[in-house]
Formats: sequence, structure tokens, C-alpha cells
Amino acid sequence: MDVTRVFHVNSGDEETTYAKNSDMQKRALSLEKSFVEEALLDYLGGKDFPEKMVIADLGCSMGPNALTPTKEIIDVVRDQCRKLGRRSPEFMVYLNDLPGNDFNNIFTSLQPDFYSKMREEEQCCVAGVPGSFHGRLFLSKSLHFVHSSASLHWLSQVPSGLDAKSGAMLNKGNIYISKTSSKAVVDAYKQQFHKDFSLFLESRAKEVIPRGHMVLSFNGRESIDPIVEECCYPGELIAQSLMSMVSKGIIQEEKVDCFNMPYYTASIQEVKTIVEDEGSFIINRLEAMDLYWDIDGSCEGENALLSRGERVSRMLRSLLESTLSFHFGMELMDELFGRLSDIISNYLSNIKGKFVVLILSVTRQ
Amino acid sequence: MDVTRVFHVNSGDEETTYAKNSDMQKRALSLEKSFVEEALLDYLGGKDFPEKMVIADLGCSMGPNALTPTKEIIDVVRDQCRKLGRRSPEFMVYLNDLPGNDFNNIFTSLQPDFYSKMREEEQCCVAGVPGSFHGRLFLSKSLHFVHSSASLHWLSQVPSGLDAKSGAMLNKGNIYISKTSSKAVVDAYKQQFHKDFSLFLESRAKEVIPRGHMVLSFNGRESIDPIVEECCYPGELIAQSLMSMVSKGIIQEEKVDCFNMPYYTASIQEVKTIVEDEGSFIINRLEAMDLYWDIDGSCEGENALLSRGERVSRMLRSLLESTLSFHFGMELMDELFGRLSDIISNYLSNIKGKFVVLILSVTRQ
Repeated sequence: MDVTRVFHVNSGDEETTYAKNSDMQKRALSLEKSFVEEALLDYLGGKDFPEKMVIADLGCSMGPNALTPTKEIIDVVRDQCRKLGRRSPEFMVYLNDLPGNDFNNIFTSLQPDFYSKMREEEQCCVAGVPGSFHGRLFLSKSLHFVHSSASLHWLSQVPSGLDAKSGAMLNKGNIYISKTSSKAVVDAYKQQFHKDFSLFLESRAKEVIPRGHMVLSFNGRESIDPIVEECCYPGELIAQSLMSMVSKGIIQEEKVDCFNMPYYTASIQEVKTIVEDEGSFIINRLEAMDLYWDIDGSCEGENALLSRGERVSRMLRSLLESTLSFHFGMELMDELFGRLSDIISNYLSNIKGKFVVLILSVTRQ
Repeated sequence: MDVTRVFHVNSGDEETTYAKNSDMQKRALSLEKSFVEEALLDYLGGKDFPEKMVIADLGCSMGPNALTPTKEIIDVVRDQCRKLGRRSPEFMVYLNDLPGNDFNNIFTSLQPDFYSKMREEEQCCVAGVPGSFHGRLFLSKSLHFVHSSASLHWLSQVPSGLDAKSGAMLNKGNIYISKTSSKAVVDAYKQQFHKDFSLFLESRAKEVIPRGHMVLSFNGRESIDPIVEECCYPGELIAQSLMSMVSKGIIQEEKVDCFNMPYYTASIQEVKTIVEDEGSFIINRLEAMDLYWDIDGSCEGENALLSRGERVSRMLRSLLESTLSFHFGMELMDELFGRLSDIISNYLSNIKGKFVVLILSVTRQ
């Protein structure tokens, strides 16, 4: 599976689109707010006050959250400029995601609200940049501030040896690391993340100017051992849904056995080691925070009327359908996520389901 | 009518898409080739050889031509670097069009062909920039080379006083300047183009670095008098088709009377005067060339089997349908362009239909 061509969040007008199921991601953005502010104030406190500021949001996605980080970053900079009695810089904002992302949705949403607010003061230019952040995207030494939220846990590919094509079926009955996964499976995932995150850092090291900042948040884990509930559970629940379809003869068992998600939740220690080994960035702050799948009253619109299991299932569907349907077929998605909402409802009756989010703030040396 | 929100070429998979009806625009690109080469060689001959080159293609559209100018520009620069024994600069390419343009189409077409060819050598980054070029789009002093083809004849709005909302109906039975148009109509069009093209130049003057170049090609006219066949005819033929529908009671006459195209074909003299009055750019070359609507054997694919009238009608439909359907209703478009193909067939039996294309090469002072 070529992840860079297959993976995208759900677009369109349906009830399962990312745009209508991204409340959790909105809460994820609020977790990192203080990191973003701190990084920007540090950057603006340097001896050369910038006339232009080039910002990149990597894995921007689409829908109502796509412009939120950009707005917040610009607001912080303008506020600080007012406090310092300085003229705000001009802004160039790059919104990046894979080429299958619905950039048309973002671009048509820019007018009139975003531009009318953002262009009240200095120039604010916006560009969409399609491509994988596991590689170069921008000119050398051209970025002042990089942001990425809820994206870096996606791998550039299913780990080598675990892809359907390899035929090895090392992770039977699972679609991600689970309690029954072998060490070989865990190592394959670890190595793929190590390779991808290193390549991400090397690419950004070329593109971010000295003293430029990055604030990156992504799903991870608190424990050193990757086989713990908090990080594996969404994968296990989806695997349960798939296996229940196997038991009914709807899906062939082999089809599940050879599928693995291109996703990894790293530990704080792993992330720290990779950043230090790459060597271009200094870590200012690295923390783990809880991001609950569903919070009472946090959800607006028609989704507020759904059961908790349905809401979480839809949220996962908006993120994972492109990848799962590529392997299992689009015609099975209603059934898969219908079963998943019952499984999640049951799970959430005992446990407060959550992701652990790692938030990393670094400065280019 | 808010042109920046309404106007876009036809996207999708239908036979009337721009992607399938853009052979003429491909020929238009070949007309300007020597202008582009000349401008690039002049730029590269300067005393500071560039390490990075930022290129903007304004009104890039979508479909098979969207990346053609970019590829040609990069090829010329790399060839020249090889001849000079210098390292090719890194490229950042901005593809601009109105927010309604199908950027998703361009972005998914970049991989794998474009990137694999373009990234063989130095870094080549691509971004989409949604917005009107009748205003700022980029950071100050950030562009080295600007290209625009087949776009600057589009006005930012229907000229003041001629919009449906004004209710003045100064141009009855026409949808553009025609032999029966009054001086007031001609002046309204002239003034709108003057205002728009001046604003275009002022915006680019802020964005293009000193010694940076622009090559702009757009429909215009050779004569000083705007009421001559060569520039008005597409508008007159469409008006004929609309009026034939009026005579059958399919469209109300008033509906045609209050509609005017946001389009103007300037003379060489007008363009020269506006550039000189704005004052930021020096004209290197400004020429008029013929661009025939249809050339035997130039058309490939299923369109080669159509009659000449049908082909030209489809080409016009791929460009104008968004604007015409916004005013007259999408349900009338099949009928309108069906009638138009007969009218054009008839017209082309006597005359070789053509646009006059003005090609302008300028350098930022």
C-alpha cells in the first residue's frame, strides 16, 4: 500500500467526513497552545526582529480545524508585536498535507472570513503544499516556524515485513501492535518510526532557519513498553470488529492477518533519543498529555445526539476509512464501523478511552 | 456577480471539462516560448547567480496544461546552468488561480511523474496559492520570475454600470463589446481593464525582486478600435446563441440585456500605456500573435472526431460555463452550447476564427 497516495481523511458532505467528526482534534490543538505561545515569544525575543515570517503547518488536514493553528499563531505574533510596539511581520503560511487531502475545501473556506480578518493588518499569504513531510517540501532555510498536530504518528508505509505484499503474516488477528504481537512485530514498527521521524527531522533541519522553532504534537505513549492498553486500544478494537466479521464469514481471516496499520505511538524516551541522535534541534520541552476520545458536552451539532460509541467510531472512520477501505473494500465500511461503535460503547462503559499525546517543542541550532 | 467566487474552468470528468478541451491553450503556450527563454537567460546572466529561484504561474488553471509552463521554465534554467557549468538553483513554484479552481486535480497529478522528473536534480517545491491576482498574493520581494498565460483578459468584475445588479441595461442584446455597443459600454470596459491591470502591476511590483522578470500573455487586439471582429467575435457568437433562445421563448430578453462578460481584449497601445504609467516595470518586448481557435490535426483524442463548431463550442464552454450558468442557469447550458456549435460551424465556413494574443515581457526596475 502506497500510504502517500492512499491515506487521506474523509472529505465531502457525508456524516462520516473529517470536517464533521473532528472535535477531538480541536481539543488536541488546545493542549499544545502554551507550547506554541512559548515558542513564538522566544522566537520574537531574538535580536533580529523579523520583517517576514514563514510558517508551515504540516498535516493540516481539512475542515474546521485546518486553519485554527494558523490563526492562533498569527494572533500570538500580532499581540506580541503590539506589546513590543513593533510592526507585525508579513506572513506566508504553508498548509501541507498528502496530495489526496481535500485542499479545495481549505481554499474555498479562506474567503471571505479568513482573509478579511487576517489581512486587516500586514500581508498574510496562504499556500497549499501537497506532499509527504517524510521528505523535503520547502526551500532550504526558508521556514521560521513549523507546526504539526495529530500527524506524525502516521508512518510513511506499513513497516517492512508487515505489508500485505510481503505475505509474512507475522501479526495474525491484529492490525497494530497488540498484547499478542511478537517482538519481531514490535521491532518492525519501532524501526519504521525511527526511520520516518529521523527523515522528518533531517528534512526540516534543512528547511528551518537557525533559531527557527517547531512545535509538534502527535499520538504517543507514556510507558516504555509499547504493549500497553492506552496506545494499542483503538487498533485492538478495530481488530475485534474485523475478527467478528471474519467469524460471520464476511471477511476472510487471511485478509485481516496480512493487514497492519501504518501508525505508531512512540514513547517520550524514543522521541528524545531520535531528536538527539539527529542533532539539528534542541529540545525545549517534551511532555505527554491525555486526550480523551469523547468528553461530555464537548461535541456540537448532530453528533451530540449520537451514542458515545457511535461518535468515537465516526471519528475513527473519518481518519481511517481511506486506508481500511483500500484493503478491505469500501462496501464493508458501514458494517465494520457499525460493529465498531457497539464494541467501543461496551469498552467505554468501563474505561475512559484516551490517546496519549506527546508535545515536543524544539529550536533549530 | 462576484467573479472571484464564481469564475473557474470546468473540472471533473465530463466531456466539457477544461482538461479535455484545452488544446488551444497548449498552442498559446508555444507562442510565448521564446519570450520565456529570453527572459530567463537575461535573469541568469545577472551578476548574482541565484541559489534559489521562486517562480509564480498566475492563473495556472488545471488539467494537462497546468504544469507545462513550470516544466518549461525549470528545463530552460537547468539547461542554461549546465551550459554555464553552474549548479542549478533550488526551485519554489507557486501555482496560482482563483479559489474555485480545482487544485486537487493539480496536486494529485504531481505524483509520480512531475516530482520524479523535477527532483532528479536540485530541490523543486510546489505550492498552490488560491486568490485573485488583482491584489497581493505573495510576500514582498519574494518572486524571481512570474508567468501568466490566458488569464489577464479576465476582469475582476463586470465593469461598473454594466453589472446585472445596476439594472442599467446599457448593452442590450450583447454580452460583450459589439458593433452595436455605445461609447459608454466601451469606456466602462476600458476603465475596468485599466483599473485591474494597474492593480495587477502594483501588486506584482511589491512582490517581484529588482531585476526579476514577468512574461504575461493574454487575449488582446491589434487594432486601436475595440469594435473589430477579431476581438469581439466569440462574444457576438455567444450572444447570437442566447438571442436565438430568446426568440424561442427559452430565455427572457431582459436576462440577456443585463448580462455582460467580465472580459476585455486590450490593444498593444493600452497595455503599453498602463505599464509605463504604473512605472515599476520596463518593457522588453510586447507583441501580438494570432491564436486560431481550431487547427486541423492539432487536436487529439475523442475531440478529433467532432465537427469544428462542436470543438470550439466545447472549448468555450469549458472556460465560460461557470459564469454563464451562474446567470442563466445550468439547465440551459446544453442548449446554449449546442446552438453555439452550429453558429460557430457556420461562422468558420467563411472565416478562420482566431484570438489575438498579446505577449508582454517586462523586468522589475
